[in-house]
Amino acid sequence: MENKIPYKTYLNENEIPKQWYNLRADMKNKPAPLLNPGTLKPMTAEELSGVFCSELVKQELDNDTAYFDIPEEIQNFYKMYRPSPLVRAYCLENALGTPAKIYYKFEGNNTSGSHKLNSAIAQAYYAKKQGLKGVTTETGAGQWGTALSMACSYFGLDCRVYMVKVSYEQKPFRREVMRTYGASVTPSPSDTTNVGRKILAEHPGTTGSLGCAISEAVEAATSNEGYRYVLGSVLNQVLLHQSIIGLESKAAFEKIGVKPDVIIGCAGGGSNLGGLIAPFMGEKLRGENDYRIIAVEPASCPSFTRGKYAYDFCDTGMVCPLAKMYTLGSGFIPSPNHAGGLRYHGMSSTLSQLYDDKLMEAVSVEQTAVFEAATQFARVEGILPAPESSHAIRVAIDEALKCKETGEEKTIFFGLTGTGYFDMVAYQKYNDGEMTDYIPSDDDLAVGFAGLPKVDL
Amino acid sequence: MENKIPYKTYLNENEIPKQWYNLRADMKNKPAPLLNPGTLKPMTAEELSGVFCSELVKQELDNDTAYFDIPEEIQNFYKMYRPSPLVRAYCLENALGTPAKIYYKFEGNNTSGSHKLNSAIAQAYYAKKQGLKGVTTETGAGQWGTALSMACSYFGLDCRVYMVKVSYEQKPFRREVMRTYGASVTPSPSDTTNVGRKILAEHPGTTGSLGCAISEAVEAATSNEGYRYVLGSVLNQVLLHQSIIGLESKAAFEKIGVKPDVIIGCAGGGSNLGGLIAPFMGEKLRGENDYRIIAVEPASCPSFTRGKYAYDFCDTGMVCPLAKMYTLGSGFIPSPNHAGGLRYHGMSSTLSQLYDDKLMEAVSVEQTAVFEAATQFARVEGILPAPESSHAIRVAIDEALKCKETGEEKTIFFGLTGTGYFDMVAYQKYNDGEMTDYIPSDDDLAVGFAGLPKVDL
Repeated sequence: MENKIPYKTYLNENEIPKQWYNLRADMKNKPAPLLNPGTLKPMTAEELSGVFCSELVKQELDNDTAYFDIPEEIQNFYKMYRPSPLVRAYCLENALGTPAKIYYKFEGNNTSGSHKLNSAIAQAYYAKKQGLKGVTTETGAGQWGTALSMACSYFGLDCRVYMVKVSYEQKPFRREVMRTYGASVTPSPSDTTNVGRKILAEHPGTTGSLGCAISEAVEAATSNEGYRYVLGSVLNQVLLHQSIIGLESKAAFEKIGVKPDVIIGCAGGGSNLGGLIAPFMGEKLRGENDYRIIAVEPASCPSFTRGKYAYDFCDTGMVCPLAKMYTLGSGFIPSPNHAGGLRYHGMSSTLSQLYDDKLMEAVSVEQTAVFEAATQFARVEGILPAPESSHAIRVAIDEALKCKETGEEKTIFFGLTGTGYFDMVAYQKYNDGEMTDYIPSDDDLAVGFAGLPKVDL
Repeated sequence: MENKIPYKTYLNENEIPKQWYNLRADMKNKPAPLLNPGTLKPMTAEELSGVFCSELVKQELDNDTAYFDIPEEIQNFYKMYRPSPLVRAYCLENALGTPAKIYYKFEGNNTSGSHKLNSAIAQAYYAKKQGLKGVTTETGAGQWGTALSMACSYFGLDCRVYMVKVSYEQKPFRREVMRTYGASVTPSPSDTTNVGRKILAEHPGTTGSLGCAISEAVEAATSNEGYRYVLGSVLNQVLLHQSIIGLESKAAFEKIGVKPDVIIGCAGGGSNLGGLIAPFMGEKLRGENDYRIIAVEPASCPSFTRGKYAYDFCDTGMVCPLAKMYTLGSGFIPSPNHAGGLRYHGMSSTLSQLYDDKLMEAVSVEQTAVFEAATQFARVEGILPAPESSHAIRVAIDEALKCKETGEEKTIFFGLTGTGYFDMVAYQKYNDGEMTDYIPSDDDLAVGFAGLPKVDL
């Protein structure tokens, strides 16, 4: 028996989108601008150009242009691992016994193991075009660092990665993949930067954090001739590049004549979610179509569901511009038992504004429930999902089970951002029944909130 | 600029082959039969049925039927991760500056990380259909064990994996993937079998070997009601299932109007090579087309290039049937510095016969050269290859460089069997400049040859 709708829908190579879509162009309430932490005035292009590549600064600040051409060099790189498949989860539907129709866009079929490569190659390209020697960045779990290493190796750029120390030690294989692609990887905090030395002096035993690694990477970029800093999430430019996920998904849905009812994405800094929903949210903003859109975050790092919408520091060292976002405060540190990524204290300004405008929902889930969903999914769909992605799987399964109760045949669509091959320590904990949950108390959260800067605009 | 030939050619879902191709049907000189180690007579279906599932025994013994229907349940599973892409390696060609056109069939885009899943799902299906409780097997690097775990989990079969002890300890993540799919994993040799206890008593400090793990898995299958043994390579049935690789490749080549001149595959037990070349070799055997076919093996385990064509034991414990094959002797153990898989002492009987009939060539390569090719490939093609696959990459690059010298525009096609995410210890050694080569001396080989059984037919 042939299925009317295939398990996997691939676009043809010439159907891969040739433009990125800038969601901000269709937003009535634009995301709040980045602020200079000294003057509290919006960062100018000139100020940002010391940190970021010039073309990326333009993309970062442009709230009006709806479409940006994807340069041919980037299109060619995309062809190496794109289009990614839009998968109909027949086996999961069967296992759940749900009348719902479940689809997912799988971004894990490349060596970085996630969607991060979509923006890494763009950022590396613009750095190369500007004649830079190299770029610096931070990485936590290592997906972004791996993606950037691949992109830099392709364009012959030097790549310096500051890797959160605990990950550097616990994920030696991620480190080796980056080294295989020619990157230098430094555990953070390190003694190679002023901010790193300061943090080490104040917290001698620290295992590091993303916010701290960001500070080091920014310092390394601004204090080395010919270097700029690049970031894998949160920024407007990253969401722009990641729109390729949503654009491909939408084109594939149109190819098979299907329209999703519910769109679900995991949310850490927002790179995947922002890219996944972009063209769908665009239709919603323009009043052409309606979709229910759900952001899923870990209960242990709940920036949307329990954070404040406020200007905050993006990094621990407070060297970066201030961003207005749903945030837990740059001083918030998730519990060490938190296994599943998505541990950034803040959230993309663009998504924060959309959430504040009630154009999307957010839910938080606990990690044992996330790994339960991950295992269930892996066993029937044959893909071992990244813990991050599994947050979306959890809620997709929950929504499908609701349909089972009500009998509704909803079309549920989620983003499967990556694979979990380098997350087996967390899976082992789950397999051994040793994984526990953690929900920060209001007092825990108060510590982070207390560090929010006083900004009165 | 659009490429006339895309980077990646995918078949449509309904174009995935619905039959496996049995290469033996077109061979004039059939592969030699398995022998009962006691009587030295060809194993009967009845004898084999104590070890293998009945349908698989039929496939194993059938040298005449050219095509076997793929059951619908297996077709459906294939749709979860197939078709796999036929990739035009534009970026590698560019980096080499060769006029050659390079293609590869990439089988690594599934959670087992390799082509092994193609046969695992078939063997699990027939076990389920026969009403068995479960299956036993061995695994070395863990690709086969992972694939079988996935397949068993899909059909609800118990899966017991004997994992070579050194891999069990050095590759805890592979072990956890198997456990996530519900398999039980035992380091081999173990005290759970007679043969394991015997080997432990004789070699107390042993870190195990594939041959030893096979013996344990066979004993576990034959001594437990409702269990059978399954094997991921060497056997005729495995090559049959793996023909899906070659069949899809051939269909994809026809779709883009290209015919390969040279076909290159890595060869350990022969599962990938046999599957990759099947339909091409079929045309060659039938005189319809000619192809140059090259098997690539490690210089440290050179069964084709330095082995003897003789009946030999398939396992260390000598409990399995005897197979006629190019072999280094079941007592041959590759040097511990050998990193790149492909460490089985023998070679598929089917491929051995084809090689003996001079229908294909074989070359051996040293491991530092293999990892050099792997790294070069990874950096431009964006896929981190498995060490096994990288043997084929090495020779594909060498052939492409020869074309650069001669100016020939040959079409080179190789099998990229899988990804190297779980092989980062070996990559680290290479990155750190600590990898060395090893070529066994004639005296080293003599040890293995001395243990060959005396079979006079």
